[in-house]
Order: sequence, then C-alpha cells, then structure tokens
Amino acid sequence: MHNLNEYLPFWDKLNTQEQKLLSDNCKTVNYKKGSHVYSANEECLGVLVVLSGSLRTYILSDEGREVTLYNLHENDVCILSASCVLSQITFDVFVDAREDCKLLLISPLAFSTVMNNNVYAENFMLRTAAERFSDTMWAMQQILFMGFDKRLAIYLLDEMSRTNSNVIRATHSDIAKEIGSAREVVSRMLKSFSEDGAVVLNRGTVEICDKKFLQNLVKD
Amino acid sequence: MHNLNEYLPFWDKLNTQEQKLLSDNCKTVNYKKGSHVYSANEECLGVLVVLSGSLRTYILSDEGREVTLYNLHENDVCILSASCVLSQITFDVFVDAREDCKLLLISPLAFSTVMNNNVYAENFMLRTAAERFSDTMWAMQQILFMGFDKRLAIYLLDEMSRTNSNVIRATHSDIAKEIGSAREVVSRMLKSFSEDGAVVLNRGTVEICDKKFLQNLVKD
Repeated sequence: MHNLNEYLPFWDKLNTQEQKLLSDNCKTVNYKKGSHVYSANEECLGVLVVLSGSLRTYILSDEGREVTLYNLHENDVCILSASCVLSQITFDVFVDAREDCKLLLISPLAFSTVMNNNVYAENFMLRTAAERFSDTMWAMQQILFMGFDKRLAIYLLDEMSRTNSNVIRATHSDIAKEIGSAREVVSRMLKSFSEDGAVVLNRGTVEICDKKFLQNLVKD
Repeated sequence: MHNLNEYLPFWDKLNTQEQKLLSDNCKTVNYKKGSHVYSANEECLGVLVVLSGSLRTYILSDEGREVTLYNLHENDVCILSASCVLSQITFDVFVDAREDCKLLLISPLAFSTVMNNNVYAENFMLRTAAERFSDTMWAMQQILFMGFDKRLAIYLLDEMSRTNSNVIRATHSDIAKEIGSAREVVSRMLKSFSEDGAVVLNRGTVEICDKKFLQNLVKD
C-alpha cells in the first residue's frame, strides 16, 4: 500500500472507489542513472511520482540533438509520461533518470478513468502541466536568449547548491544535454573557466574553486 | 450584452451570479494592426477573446529579439494576457495585433473571482494553458531543430492556406518576427526562393508562384 495521499493533493476529493482504483494500479519502479524511463515512441507509461533521485525531461531532434525542458526531483509528479491521459499535450518528450531513481508509477488507464470522473483530479494534472509550461519557458529563454558562459555558470552554481558540494559529478556530455548545447562547446567554455582559475577539471567531475567568478558572470 | 456563452465552454457550469459578474465586466476593444495589446511590464489586462483579426504572442530578449510562441485567431481565448489570474504561469509574454482586431476583454478581477469559486472555470483556463504549451513546443522545435528554408516554406504555405490567397501581405521584418529569425536572414532566403522562381517579391508582399517547390522543401 502506497501513501498516494502524500503525493496527490486531490486525494481527499476522491471517493473510496476512486482511491482504491489508483492504489490498486500503482507500483514502485527503479531506474539506474542514465537509463531511459519514457520515450515518445513507446506506449503511454503512466503518471510518475519521484520518491528518490531525479528525472530529466527533454525533446529530441531528428539528428539526435537533445534539449532539456526541466528536471524533476523528490515528490515531483511527472505528467508528460502520461500524455495519453492529457489530450491537450500533443508534443513528444523523453524522460531519463539523471540519478538512480525510485518512482511510483500509476497506470494511465486507472488515472484517466479517475480524471474523467473527477474534475479535481483533472484540475491537478492541468495545473501541473501549466507549471511545467513555465519551467519549459525558463529553459527556452535561456537557450534562445542567454550568453553561453552565463548558462554554464548558472548550471554549475545550481548543481553546487543542489548537491551541497563544490565537486559536480557530470561529464561534459551530460552537461551539454542538460543545458541544450554541444559537448565541444561545453568543453571549450569549461577550459576557459579553468584557465581563469574558476574550476578544476578532472575525469567525470568539475570542481568549483572560485564561486565568485561564476556569480559575477551570472550578474552581468 | 455579449454572448459569452458562445466563447466560454464552462458557461453552463456557472451560477447566475457568476454569469452576471463576467457579463458586467466585459467589453469590446479594438486594436490596429501592429499595435501592442499586452506587455509583461504592464498591469494584467484580462482574458481576451478574438472576435475578428489575429494576435501574436511572443517572448522578448533583453536585446530586443522577438520569438513568436503562437498566433491566436477568431474565437480563440488569450489567457497569457491574464497571467495574473493563473499563478502557475510565471514567464513574461507580449501580445501584438497581427491584423486589425476586435476583441472581447473580461476584467482579470471578475475572472479570477469566478475562477476561485468554480473549478470548471479554472479547468478551462488551465486546459487552454496546456494547449498553448503544445503550440509553444511546436514553435520551439521548429526554431531549435528545423532548417531555416523549411521553416520559411512552412510559414508561406500556412499563410497561403489561412488567407486563401497566393499573395502574402507581410514585410520581411514581419515574417522574421513570426518565425523567430532576423530580417536579414529572411530577406536572403526569400531572394534565394525568388531566384528559384518559387516566389515574386514586391514591397510588403510575397507572391507564391510555385507551391510545389515549397511543399518539396517541407517534405525533406
């Protein structure tokens, strides 16, 4: 029995039958860091709740270029993995595990049954979609409008504060995917940061030595 | 008295008091082609319904670069001009009149009062936001992933079919804003299309002579 009431704020608006339907069609799933959780080509997976770890949601070009829309962390609900239950969402996304993940998966059929009967369940899904729209626009504005040095500095500072460590465990290729760029561009800019003494580069890690330097880039 | 019931599908779910509140706080407004309807810096305008003409919604960089998210046509409801009533929408947009426009404007205070009391009104706004999220992702994928010749060909074919005419009345600068590019880039590509005999360029118009040529570009 999973404590769905902790994750679904509309739980108290469901009748006993609806609550049972969701509980009976929900299971825990685990994904290793870097594995694919959902791709647009597969069948609709369902609604995911992040119990631990984090997920990355991105779009993919025909040539294989990835552009990250947003990441999801503990207690976040992933709705785009259940876009079949939201007819308004017509674009294709991919979801990967950024870290080892433990997720709750609610089946799309059970969820859509509840959503079609209960306006509050639908309200929750739509509200979450509108929040993700804002998250996505933030990423798009960075990619379309912001200088690349600034974007990379923001990424490094965000990761530093999120992991509470000045050593970021990510390859240049991981970083490129997160901020919607190419590996070569990330490597070149990190080399320039390292020549300025702001970071020390090692295999698979970036150590931040001069936080102030990065903060000044972001301020400009 | 405006026929709000024609435009707001949740009308029948409102009580008489709620219906009266919206009707009493709704008026017709007119905008000339090219004029600003809403900008993120102004106060929240309200919910707009397009009675005639069309609107363009876009984001703007600090350097003044515009990227179009989507256009709205007759009977469409513009929600981002009332983002103050939707707390999930946290990004700034601008709305311009693409053509001479007649709009219905519902005051944000009246609308938010109804929305806070009536989950069906809120769901309509959120559902519309989710649709605009999809429209926006379509535009972003074009800008991030698609060759520029293809994007321009799609724009010309769309306008041709929308206006039911092979003469498109738009300057190169108008077109650049619509498809998120620079005027110089549009002019260069139109010149190349014209050298291929696909279009004839005149002041303020683009005449399409070879639809097949454009369709082949889109197919690639």
